[in-house]
Amino acid sequence: MKILIIGGNGTIGKVVRDHLTQNHELIIAARTNGDVNVDIADSKSIENMFQKVGTVDAIVCIAGEAKWAPFNDLSESDFHIGLNSKLMGQVNLVRIGQKHLSAGGSFTLSTGILADDPVPMTTSAAMVNGGIHSFARAAALELENGHRINVVSSGLVIDAVDKYRDYFPGHNPVPMNKVVNAYVKSIEGKINGEIIRIYE
Amino acid sequence: MKILIIGGNGTIGKVVRDHLTQNHELIIAARTNGDVNVDIADSKSIENMFQKVGTVDAIVCIAGEAKWAPFNDLSESDFHIGLNSKLMGQVNLVRIGQKHLSAGGSFTLSTGILADDPVPMTTSAAMVNGGIHSFARAAALELENGHRINVVSSGLVIDAVDKYRDYFPGHNPVPMNKVVNAYVKSIEGKINGEIIRIYE
Repeated sequence: MKILIIGGNGTIGKVVRDHLTQNHELIIAARTNGDVNVDIADSKSIENMFQKVGTVDAIVCIAGEAKWAPFNDLSESDFHIGLNSKLMGQVNLVRIGQKHLSAGGSFTLSTGILADDPVPMTTSAAMVNGGIHSFARAAALELENGHRINVVSSGLVIDAVDKYRDYFPGHNPVPMNKVVNAYVKSIEGKINGEIIRIYE
Repeated sequence: MKILIIGGNGTIGKVVRDHLTQNHELIIAARTNGDVNVDIADSKSIENMFQKVGTVDAIVCIAGEAKWAPFNDLSESDFHIGLNSKLMGQVNLVRIGQKHLSAGGSFTLSTGILADDPVPMTTSAAMVNGGIHSFARAAALELENGHRINVVSSGLVIDAVDKYRDYFPGHNPVPMNKVVNAYVKSIEGKINGEIIRIYE
């Protein structure tokens, strides 16, 4: 399969990439150091990426940001960082990517446990994750050409524990191989419209 | 209790209003024909509303729009209708409303079954509903002064069946009194951070 991974150099992206490269042809898209560069918060940049990449068999997004801060410190424009990037960035990847995805191909988006089990400072991050969950379930009802869409929602992954432990008291770290398997399940399997929750 | 209801003239709003007015002092906010007028898609309009209304004991939002259309007909700016109105409109009511809500007061937001059980043409509407669910759970962890926040997520309500039946095949209509009770539970009870799902 020819697979486009947007965000293939991040904490989760690189382990997913290292696994998928064993059996597939990968194109890594990133902000600055990918095979192709993209800013998912800008739909024109997404269009440009697909013009360069052409048709692929799977589109995987492990990118997108949202601002973490105490609720009372988040301005309206702070919320728009997450709305433009992790939320509409992923929605636009699906909107635009459909035209560049082969029949039967899959979209795999990424969210996180905050959608279901938030912690302080994540009103914006939780919101965009929850939005993607409901979007994907709705989009699955309408995609054409046998296209599928699923979301991987991971808990605090082991490789990020050192950085994020203090924000997630009592959360059980998720082994990286389980996260990788969630992406494999979406890409190589036949499921559609599922939120694959990888929580320990 | 002094209760501000934004959207008190809609299908659900008017039954909630007619019930609450028996025991409470109500202020109805609406686009054009309220006790006070507000466009929740505009945070300055929300600020102006609260300047007129002053301090209240409960803030109830039964307003907010999102565009319904086939996924492939929804432009990026169509998605922003829902993001600005039903999603950020309700977020901004909480952000701004905190300063005008008495200690121990409650926010009650509104979404709908599309967040959990979408139908075709609702990628945008489902998305904003799911976003509000996760936002409210996260905000509940951080609100100050004993403020509470809950969301009422209703299925297809009986009073809207004639208009929406064809969009919701197999959905069981929800009696209006159950919907009213969900708002009462949030406003007069002590729950916090709950998504009150009224599905049949």
